[in-house]
Amino acid sequence: MKAYLSRRYHFSASHRLNSPAYAEERNREVYGKCNNPHGHGHNYTVEVTVSGRVDPVTGMVCNLADLDAFAQKNLLERFDHTNLNELECFAYRVSTTENLSIEVYRIFAGFPGAHLERIHIEETGNNSFDYAGDG
Amino acid sequence: MKAYLSRRYHFSASHRLNSPAYAEERNREVYGKCNNPHGHGHNYTVEVTVSGRVDPVTGMVCNLADLDAFAQKNLLERFDHTNLNELECFAYRVSTTENLSIEVYRIFAGFPGAHLERIHIEETGNNSFDYAGDG
Amino acid sequence: MKAYLSRRYHFSASHRLNSPAYAEERNREVYGKCNNPHGHGHNYTVEVTVSGRVDPVTGMVCNLADLDAFAQKNLLERFDHTNLNELECFAYRVSTTENLSIEVYRIFAGFPGAHLERIHIEETGNNSFDYAGDG
Amino acid sequence: MKAYLSRRYHFSASHRLNSPAYAEERNREVYGKCNNPHGHGHNYTVEVTVSGRVDPVTGMVCNLADLDAFAQKNLLERFDHTNLNELECFAYRVSTTENLSIEVYRIFAGFPGAHLERIHIEETGNNSFDYAGDG
Amino acid sequence: MKAYLSRRYHFSASHRLNSPAYAEERNREVYGKCNNPHGHGHNYTVEVTVSGRVDPVTGMVCNLADLDAFAQKNLLERFDHTNLNELECFAYRVSTTENLSIEVYRIFAGFPGAHLERIHIEETGNNSFDYAGDG
Amino acid sequence: MKAYLSRRYHFSASHRLNSPAYAEERNREVYGKCNNPHGHGHNYTVEVTVSGRVDPVTGMVCNLADLDAFAQKNLLERFDHTNLNELECFAYRVSTTENLSIEVYRIFAGFPGAHLERIHIEETGNNSFDYAGDG
Repeated sequence: MKAYLSRRYHFSASHRLNSPAYAEERNREVYGKCNNPHGHGHNYTVEVTVSGRVDPVTGMVCNLADLDAFAQKNLLERFDHTNLNELECFAYRVSTTENLSIEVYRIFAGFPGAHLERIHIEETGNNSFDYAGDG
Repeated sequence: MKAYLSRRYHFSASHRLNSPAYAEERNREVYGKCNNPHGHGHNYTVEVTVSGRVDPVTGMVCNLADLDAFAQKNLLERFDHTNLNELECFAYRVSTTENLSIEVYRIFAGFPGAHLERIHIEETGNNSFDYAGDG
Repeated sequence: MKAYLSRRYHFSASHRLNSPAYAEERNREVYGKCNNPHGHGHNYTVEVTVSGRVDPVTGMVCNLADLDAFAQKNLLERFDHTNLNELECFAYRVSTTENLSIEVYRIFAGFPGAHLERIHIEETGNNSFDYAGDG
Repeated sequence: MKAYLSRRYHFSASHRLNSPAYAEERNREVYGKCNNPHGHGHNYTVEVTVSGRVDPVTGMVCNLADLDAFAQKNLLERFDHTNLNELECFAYRVSTTENLSIEVYRIFAGFPGAHLERIHIEETGNNSFDYAGDG
Repeated sequence: MKAYLSRRYHFSASHRLNSPAYAEERNREVYGKCNNPHGHGHNYTVEVTVSGRVDPVTGMVCNLADLDAFAQKNLLERFDHTNLNELECFAYRVSTTENLSIEVYRIFAGFPGAHLERIHIEETGNNSFDYAGDG
Repeated sequence: MKAYLSRRYHFSASHRLNSPAYAEERNREVYGKCNNPHGHGHNYTVEVTVSGRVDPVTGMVCNLADLDAFAQKNLLERFDHTNLNELECFAYRVSTTENLSIEVYRIFAGFPGAHLERIHIEETGNNSFDYAGDG
């Protein structure tokens, strides 16, 4: 009786795409307007999918209140209303949503209440990214 | 030429989360405001995914009219505008969306027109649940 | 420089449509499946629209933090995860979304930070209701 | 570090479901109002999912600008504002969304920038179709 | 106690924008790809807004079941799964969504259960049109 | 035969709310996390509503291609993928969405093809702002 639970969290952040390995001109070619020096921003939606056996007593995979408390402390307080490029996790990596997905996966892999299946991040209504670990 | 077809159905129902195995106080701790004695409600969206070979004559996995008729009779007439806790299938199980997903999967497993892949239920815009059988 | 600010709040509740002025059979005719004795439920979205002059110092019509605190205390704590029919305001009125809109308007008319323009309530993705006062 | 990138494209087209292998009456039985002789239309949303290793220098699975240019030329210029039944690829196949998914998969399988995982097409808000190849 | 009720209906249709008053080349200039000879299509969403006093006995502006029956007969049966250009109402008018809004307004102006306020039609997620009569 | 046409445009930008008239501490009190020194971002949706008589020859209020070209040049090229605080129009005004609405209204008031009715900006799925001029 393995079921999947998905929960969405929302935050707003700015970023600028710029690779330290590239010269200025090459950065502009690769990232286009996402390389604008003053940055730009997004309303990000993170969907966390966890799985587990449905507990016969509670009828739940895990308690959403626990997942929400974990997300509040480890996701929203760290990322909401920030400039991603200023965060330690993007000090040496470009703040693409691919890299953001990997970082958010790393965070929720530490959630003790259920098995993490996948992170899905919507950057805009038309762009989304998934990361499901290295397995 | 195996393809997947997903179809969404909508119904409104009320429920109350309360486990018969727990004392009143423990129920309030586990389910929080979802344990409110008078219940509360949701607009549920059920997405049914079936799969099959695309028929070279009709160009279809299965006829949507057949799936709709099956859903009307077996899903919507049983669940729409009800209190889930009053239904026979929740007499001994908590009416969580995890358990609802398993019950809806059991229902569509009986659809003769295509292979059932997965049930996805959205409880709110931010919470969703998937069940894909025991395999 | 009068601008309008709209903010959405979400809550889940159950209700049953049944008029004390009608006999059982007439209630069933008028309300159909919404008269189901065990009730059913919805994810309600309330959109509150307020207006005012844009303050030249803050650039705001009113502080969203104030509107949110007001909504938390006066709307969400009273309505979320309840059975509307059990609330005092529906003791003598049918819990239709029309009447809910009027009640929610009455609540936000007491918000001190800006002029209330209109309450818009979405009951499902296809049904919505507006109330803008008696004027 | 394999990640998935999904991108949505939108186009409007008309079609009529009618199988050359069936007599007129049988076509009407199978396709119902979708067999209406003058056709009808949809706003189609195509979601393309590609995967690949996240490049450590760029932080990207592939450059979205390349995927967009490919989609503009090979998907949107061919399908947007057309009658699907008039297109060569539907000369001998019924223009169902199942067959459209297979055709769109065939198109993006030729995208050189990343591995194609899946095509997802939404025909309406309630109907969607997936094709992930023959593997 | 005047309230507003809005209800959404959905249909799929094809059309081609072409003015009989223009030569072929001018039509192509004015309508661009919407002038494609084989037509194209849309999933149209019609939102009908009616208003009235909230009946103190029923708590309703009007009975949604009546509005739905009226819409089924007068809107959906006439427009769903059709080619708009083949309908009598577009015999001498271009099938733009502006003209469609005026025609749909004319239809719902005949609904006996409440006062028609406005017709809102969404042609795509980014385009919409409103008509509120000549007053 | 006056009708209304609404068109949505999307852009991503970052900003920081900070009033030059306030001391640092007061700014933090008024704007909360929106005052974060490194800024944050949004996917903004601008909906422009224009009105006019439906031209009996074209069936249109105005040509969407003209509105799109105007928006591309005057809205998207100026605002997309920028930091709003760096723009000239926010040199002396706080970059709230109220002030952004007024600025976008000023821009589209210059559109020659139809009468501007209103600017509606969605900052997130739950916050929106309208400006309809000083009249």
